[in-house]
Amino acid sequence: MFGVVLGVDPGVSRCGYGVVRRDGAALAAVAAGVLSTPPSEPLPERLAALEAELETLVAEFAPDAVAVERLLFQHNTRTAMAVGQASGLVLAVCARAGVPVGHYSPNEVKLGVVGHGGADKHQVQTMVARLLGLGDVPRPPDAADALALAICHAWRLQVDAPSGAVPGLERAIDAALTREAR
Amino acid sequence: MFGVVLGVDPGVSRCGYGVVRRDGAALAAVAAGVLSTPPSEPLPERLAALEAELETLVAEFAPDAVAVERLLFQHNTRTAMAVGQASGLVLAVCARAGVPVGHYSPNEVKLGVVGHGGADKHQVQTMVARLLGLGDVPRPPDAADALALAICHAWRLQVDAPSGAVPGLERAIDAALTREAR
Repeated sequence: MFGVVLGVDPGVSRCGYGVVRRDGAALAAVAAGVLSTPPSEPLPERLAALEAELETLVAEFAPDAVAVERLLFQHNTRTAMAVGQASGLVLAVCARAGVPVGHYSPNEVKLGVVGHGGADKHQVQTMVARLLGLGDVPRPPDAADALALAICHAWRLQVDAPSGAVPGLERAIDAALTREAR
Repeated sequence: MFGVVLGVDPGVSRCGYGVVRRDGAALAAVAAGVLSTPPSEPLPERLAALEAELETLVAEFAPDAVAVERLLFQHNTRTAMAVGQASGLVLAVCARAGVPVGHYSPNEVKLGVVGHGGADKHQVQTMVARLLGLGDVPRPPDAADALALAICHAWRLQVDAPSGAVPGLERAIDAALTREAR
């Protein structure tokens, strides 16, 4: 069974990350933040620095699984390239560390966290805070997006696990409601 | 002054590479080929394998400079992502090895090798063979494209170098013609 899941919202200027762990039937936030590289530096140096930071992150939190945002469509080639460059580093780091990776599109994340693919960013962030029992919406938004990815993947893994007869989403919502009612 | 230039045409399934070195006023081919990863393997493992092969390549040929294709526009997001993932690894590997990187769009390569940006692939490959004194067009095409990138960058570096009073392109064409006349 998984214990810790790392979500990564890849980017070169800003790469969001969020770590969640199982807390009984619920999920708890372990860490969240943004790895950033200065646009004033040459791109190769920025990518090497990002890869080193990702390696440190994976070594520090030792996730059982990693979830990375899958870019399905992107109007801007420059953005697609930068997201591709960052995600390439994330995936290579995970493979070297022997950590399996799951991919989720933005709509799959919305569907997983809010229950419908048309949810807006604010709804997603509010649900992330509720499901993880946080008093406030996690900041910055890149970190909240990464936590949403981690939540999605944690549920998927719970559902797929042999003992996951009760869907993870239902159990997690039950746990979140119970926690709020206390 | 530079001695050896590595050109890389990034891709995950097929990543072309070509190495050239100065041979007097002309350029000579040192090596060219394709790093490929099996599509049947999971993407993270393929990217980790590609990064390891790129590291070996840079260690083996110890280039003074690396030229990487710059993707300016790409209709297909999947292709843009894959090129981005591979190029991210190339750039990070170069930064770690302390090798400076130049970027060239496909049109800049055509302009540099054939003399006009509207040249077709066949013209570029024929010129690569002539300028490097090769009997045949280098195969596969990915390797020829990578050699074209290396040639472009080698000329740019020659022009930019303090002693480069005579443009590198002119000198290289003179040298190629002299060699062919022998």
